Amino acid sequence: MSQNPAIRHALSVKRADDFAQWYQAVVAEADMAEESGVRGCMVIKPWGYGIWERIQKLLDAEIKATGHDNCYFPLFIPLSYFEKEAAHVEGFAKEMAVVTHHRLISDGQGGLVPDPAAKLEEPLVVRPTSETVIGAAMARWVQSWRDLPLLTNQWANVVRWEMRTRMFLRTTEFLWQEGHTAHADKADAMEETLRMLEVYRAFAEGPLAIPVIVGEKPANERFPGADATYSIEAMMQDGKALQAGTSHYLGTTFAEAAGIRYQDREGGQALCHTTSWGVSTRMIGGVIMTHGDDDGLRVPPQIAPWQVVILPMLRENEGDVALLEYCEGLKRELAQQSALGEPIRVLLDKKPGKATAKRWSWVKKGAPLILEIGGRDAESGQVSVLRRDRLWNAAAKPDFQGAARDAFAAAAGATLEAIQTALFEEARDRRDANIRRDIATLDELAAFYHEDAQFPGWVELAWSRPEGAALEAVDTKLKALKLTIRNTPLGGEAVSGTCPFTGDPAIERIYVARAY
Amino acid sequence: MSQNPAIRHALSVKRADDFAQWYQAVVAEADMAEESGVRGCMVIKPWGYGIWERIQKLLDAEIKATGHDNCYFPLFIPLSYFEKEAAHVEGFAKEMAVVTHHRLISDGQGGLVPDPAAKLEEPLVVRPTSETVIGAAMARWVQSWRDLPLLTNQWANVVRWEMRTRMFLRTTEFLWQEGHTAHADKADAMEETLRMLEVYRAFAEGPLAIPVIVGEKPANERFPGADATYSIEAMMQDGKALQAGTSHYLGTTFAEAAGIRYQDREGGQALCHTTSWGVSTRMIGGVIMTHGDDDGLRVPPQIAPWQVVILPMLRENEGDVALLEYCEGLKRELAQQSALGEPIRVLLDKKPGKATAKRWSWVKKGAPLILEIGGRDAESGQVSVLRRDRLWNAAAKPDFQGAARDAFAAAAGATLEAIQTALFEEARDRRDANIRRDIATLDELAAFYHEDAQFPGWVELAWSRPEGAALEAVDTKLKALKLTIRNTPLGGEAVSGTCPFTGDPAIERIYVARAY
Repeated sequence: MSQNPAIRHALSVKRADDFAQWYQAVVAEADMAEESGVRGCMVIKPWGYGIWERIQKLLDAEIKATGHDNCYFPLFIPLSYFEKEAAHVEGFAKEMAVVTHHRLISDGQGGLVPDPAAKLEEPLVVRPTSETVIGAAMARWVQSWRDLPLLTNQWANVVRWEMRTRMFLRTTEFLWQEGHTAHADKADAMEETLRMLEVYRAFAEGPLAIPVIVGEKPANERFPGADATYSIEAMMQDGKALQAGTSHYLGTTFAEAAGIRYQDREGGQALCHTTSWGVSTRMIGGVIMTHGDDDGLRVPPQIAPWQVVILPMLRENEGDVALLEYCEGLKRELAQQSALGEPIRVLLDKKPGKATAKRWSWVKKGAPLILEIGGRDAESGQVSVLRRDRLWNAAAKPDFQGAARDAFAAAAGATLEAIQTALFEEARDRRDANIRRDIATLDELAAFYHEDAQFPGWVELAWSRPEGAALEAVDTKLKALKLTIRNTPLGGEAVSGTCPFTGDPAIERIYVARAY
Repeated sequence: MSQNPAIRHALSVKRADDFAQWYQAVVAEADMAEESGVRGCMVIKPWGYGIWERIQKLLDAEIKATGHDNCYFPLFIPLSYFEKEAAHVEGFAKEMAVVTHHRLISDGQGGLVPDPAAKLEEPLVVRPTSETVIGAAMARWVQSWRDLPLLTNQWANVVRWEMRTRMFLRTTEFLWQEGHTAHADKADAMEETLRMLEVYRAFAEGPLAIPVIVGEKPANERFPGADATYSIEAMMQDGKALQAGTSHYLGTTFAEAAGIRYQDREGGQALCHTTSWGVSTRMIGGVIMTHGDDDGLRVPPQIAPWQVVILPMLRENEGDVALLEYCEGLKRELAQQSALGEPIRVLLDKKPGKATAKRWSWVKKGAPLILEIGGRDAESGQVSVLRRDRLWNAAAKPDFQGAARDAFAAAAGATLEAIQTALFEEARDRRDANIRRDIATLDELAAFYHEDAQFPGWVELAWSRPEGAALEAVDTKLKALKLTIRNTPLGGEAVSGTCPFTGDPAIERIYVARAY
């Protein structure tokens, strides 16, 4: 992935050498998050949380623009709520945090223990997702067809007990938004399910600059209790798939369990059809593995907490006053420009420290534009600009470009927009170059994934859509190759050929990949 | 509190008749929140959550402007973290949710039980506040004096097991922000403690339009483990006090427990001095009890999710097209104006329903300006405006004022600003009229709080600042009268006279009140 062996990269481990180690190095060196000391939970540090705040702000606007109201529902869900929905519990019961006591007492030896006298009559589950508790609220709120559709969303933390965790990608506690809606009929609920899937696609390919495949999951990969699950799937730089967002049509299953009924226009009672959809801090893992390089993270400008970082080359003498004045003026000027529909976010980093150390810390964090301004630049009205997406020149040096301050400032918005586009196109081209469409048999599939190539990418296969035991047989065969079906792309063209699993005529195509 | 007995108020219960019942009625009728079915936890509905989102947005900007970075720390805190800080645990151990298992299994009878095989070796506490777990992170992050001050904040949910709960005011789970900072010495930490206290004062008196008394808590009311606790105290319409925000100087107590040490400029090792400060969804309870009236809530414009609500008087005939066009145009025009430094937030409410029912629902929600627009208004370029803070005219009717559309739109920003000011001044005048400053003995104090007056307000007393057993004796006497010391106002003038509790010369003054 590196072109020039003379380049001395900022990270000690390269993607091509050990992708998992490289990922951990980016998280640490970009100062995004760290292990908390609490099993499976991370501390999200300012740069990581700043990216999440950008994601929240932009996605929240889309969720509101499509008519959803934000609410907040309880963290705790009584055990009995889960007992009502068997398929749902089957999917989640194995990995939930259970609150059993509401008080601690001294153990008489300087320690603390749960107070046996404060044992809860009914244990409480820390929400792994909120269908059941929001369903109970919907049953109170929905009376008649006039109350429908009911369109809610919440931003919250959720907990799923995970045995193996990896920061951002799979943590015991994570942050997300979960939309929950109730509708009069299937058609309206399906329209909602697909509308929010499209919101996710546009969000991934826009602000996150991550190209995604939009499609439906096979039955064995559905959300527990759902009638249909759709996903956006992104290819990481190691060729693995990351499910970056899901949208579920839940049929009447949760409505039945919670009693979400309405009086229809004819005066009869009917069950609602519900949906749910969510994206999480996992998307930040997707940003890292899509845009990161051997020098750290590269943050797409639209979600960068700071889009331009100005580093004054302070010398701790009286010349610093004029230099800082020049930098402050430049900062103000840039902040008055727009990029990607918002004022440019500029940081003037005056923290003490060596200039080169500060430069590399911002390279590793992936700020889109890094400016180094010295006393001579200030005197002559110049700036020195490093584009994070084009870091190295042919001489294997950081590719700083000198520019007149006014010209740079006037073009800064367009430059940031160009970086946003360049990151997307680079990821899209890499993705498209790494999908094999010419594999027709299981032997070929096994051979492809047994090759020495470290990053084999995805395979698009002809698919006869088997169900039940036939689908389970497929699942078993794929598991042996450490593969999963990602999804069936929506709006695919008519398909000919034979399904390599069943030998039956294909009716659609599927993507198969290793996955996070 | 009502001037005209001929008025037919929107709520069935009046403040003067039953303040607690009135409070519940406002929460329900303004559609802000409801009981969730989960013990002690509420569901925050769109109007209540929208107010919280406004609070978050405005306060977050102030927290960032004062140099703090947002982070996110774990929901779960290992028991052993609490064992390290005895005073802290003493204060919280009695009311915490404890996670003891990480899996459920079938009980063989269709139910679920915590899996005995999945019992945690060390129980996890659901955070009641995050000093301990953030302290552990700070110990990792702080190495030298160059790392100080370390200024962090998080927006999060916290859980304190409460026996008696009341929506927004005291719930088992609530939402808040908690700032946590580490400093090189006491002077710097105290400066931070008081800086954030001032941020809270300005926020309460600005966006919330709630006048507050800023002061220091007596030793018996300190945060568990703090060296000094400061608060902002607001008077509710029943004369009770509400602690609306606190800021704590924690000395080196938590630094010692967590090991937050730094290398000073001379190369020696020193303990950090830490602070913490927080405000929560409880502030929304304060907004209700400060600004609500017998017709529901009145939301200060700066925190109103919608500042102007346009209600078109639809007739379900072809005239509706022109009427809606007129209303859309008005909405666009208003949204281009500014009030209180932001674009005006306008809702055009096109939902089906009777016009009067819709009007009263917005009156109860407390939207600052409600416009009713009929076909004739549209034809003649008029609007009909109801100011929520001046709801009734002398004839006991809703005080709709006709105005030319252009004149109304041009003045809308100023009108909203006038409402913001009017609400603050009304609350400040009421507060000031309900503080007694002429009480000199405990007998007078007891007599004052035994009078028949339902809403006796606060008493300012001379105070000799007793400590230890003497302070406990005061506490006992006050408890018998159901009173507490709220705080010692900062920057008070020199005090003469005698402390009614100790008979010693007064050195400062305190506020005494019944409290939430």
